[in-house]
Amino acid sequence: MPPEQGEEHKIEQANKRLPAYALRQLIRSSEFTGNTSGYAQGKVQGNIVILPQDWASDFLQFCQLNPKPCPLIGMSSTPGDFTLNDFGEDIDIRTDVPGYQLFEHGQLIKEFTDIKMLWREDLVTFVLGCSFSFEESLIADGIDIRNISENKNVPMYRTNITCKTAGRFRGNTVVSMRPMLAKDAIRAIQICSRFPSVHGAPIHFGEPNLIGIDDINIPDYGDSVTIKTNEVPVFWACGVTPQLALRQSKPPFCITHSPGKMLVTDINNASLAVL
Amino acid sequence: MPPEQGEEHKIEQANKRLPAYALRQLIRSSEFTGNTSGYAQGKVQGNIVILPQDWASDFLQFCQLNPKPCPLIGMSSTPGDFTLNDFGEDIDIRTDVPGYQLFEHGQLIKEFTDIKMLWREDLVTFVLGCSFSFEESLIADGIDIRNISENKNVPMYRTNITCKTAGRFRGNTVVSMRPMLAKDAIRAIQICSRFPSVHGAPIHFGEPNLIGIDDINIPDYGDSVTIKTNEVPVFWACGVTPQLALRQSKPPFCITHSPGKMLVTDINNASLAVL
Repeated sequence: MPPEQGEEHKIEQANKRLPAYALRQLIRSSEFTGNTSGYAQGKVQGNIVILPQDWASDFLQFCQLNPKPCPLIGMSSTPGDFTLNDFGEDIDIRTDVPGYQLFEHGQLIKEFTDIKMLWREDLVTFVLGCSFSFEESLIADGIDIRNISENKNVPMYRTNITCKTAGRFRGNTVVSMRPMLAKDAIRAIQICSRFPSVHGAPIHFGEPNLIGIDDINIPDYGDSVTIKTNEVPVFWACGVTPQLALRQSKPPFCITHSPGKMLVTDINNASLAVL
Repeated sequence: MPPEQGEEHKIEQANKRLPAYALRQLIRSSEFTGNTSGYAQGKVQGNIVILPQDWASDFLQFCQLNPKPCPLIGMSSTPGDFTLNDFGEDIDIRTDVPGYQLFEHGQLIKEFTDIKMLWREDLVTFVLGCSFSFEESLIADGIDIRNISENKNVPMYRTNITCKTAGRFRGNTVVSMRPMLAKDAIRAIQICSRFPSVHGAPIHFGEPNLIGIDDINIPDYGDSVTIKTNEVPVFWACGVTPQLALRQSKPPFCITHSPGKMLVTDINNASLAVL
């Protein structure tokens, strides 16, 4: 590789070894604006949804009714509060996520690396669990996670599984798919059942048509991955579900993290295990 | 139904409601010599293997190396002891099982309802967990167990999955099969994972060929059951595995329960849950 690429790779490897706090400081100063997969290993990363107070209670109810696609692990204590002290030292949600998306009436308006200029006194922040946490546990048990071993985004699909409606929020479940042998799928169901706050156990395996997926090789989001002989596709409820509901429900103002650019917290993945 | 059948049915229903102790008294007096499925609900039923002391340590090791097909839940405290006080009030293993099979050198010699005449001072009794316990938990969660709803013996199959060898004991795993929808299979994996002492989680689902089963409609033991559209076959390690190992290993003397005629204990199924 050319010397400058080698240098970039070295910096990336060094950043991956940074503690969560140090990584957040790089993110705060916009020195780091990339995807957070593989960074601060062992720590919980969160999907972020920020809504005005008059939309927040509907969204809170949507999460509580649909805990598998929308596993709420926390929210700001009062409207307008941009700290999230339960999630890590000195977190400022306006600056500590590598990338933000602003939506107005369900339309993506612009991406930001800092939302200080957009902040309002009525904004409520929601933190939702993310699949990075359970992927780490599966890899630790020797299960090949294809999107990681093939260095791709996990394939995601819209399904015919309807979420429970909460006020103005409605939509279908989006799933992520990881192919594996049946014996590994059984083990994955056991392991992920311990982690309900990061999507929990899979919701389907096998025949994709049964949940409304026409072609497993054409995901609606992310990349297609190899399904090897004798492997079955295993489907988890996915954090894109609330994003789809937000696009359909069209709140006048909403901010989310940019896909793959998560809030890196100080919470240990291991602490999420319920048993 | 004719009056005498009606009378039999009434007696059967009454016997099914008997507490475990009272049922064992009927078994002891040979008034009850039938299958125990559906009797003394909520109580653990056990597979029984009785071996001479010089074969017992190999068998004990076989169980410990192969806990999914051979989940040992207890054994007699000393050779020759025919009581099993940890398993229930006043149990005498020589009389309290509805049917016994005597094997010599791996060959079935004869069936008995009482083995007092066969008892020896060197005999060691093993009690192994049985699928009745987890079926009860699955039914309690609303999952249809086809062998029960179709009133059949569960279909069982020899597989190409080798057990770990222990001394003179070797053999392949036998599995039982219950067809269900993927969503129920996921739930069954969760529920059965709580019960490692009654075979635990399934060991395979889906394609039967992958574990050496040529035709799912032709079980090696038990009855074929209906597999409905969209259902997948789910396979559990089965208590027939040690029986197959005993036939292959040919101890000169061995007694087991007759298939389906189990030791009914006073232990609650719920007490087997590890979490």
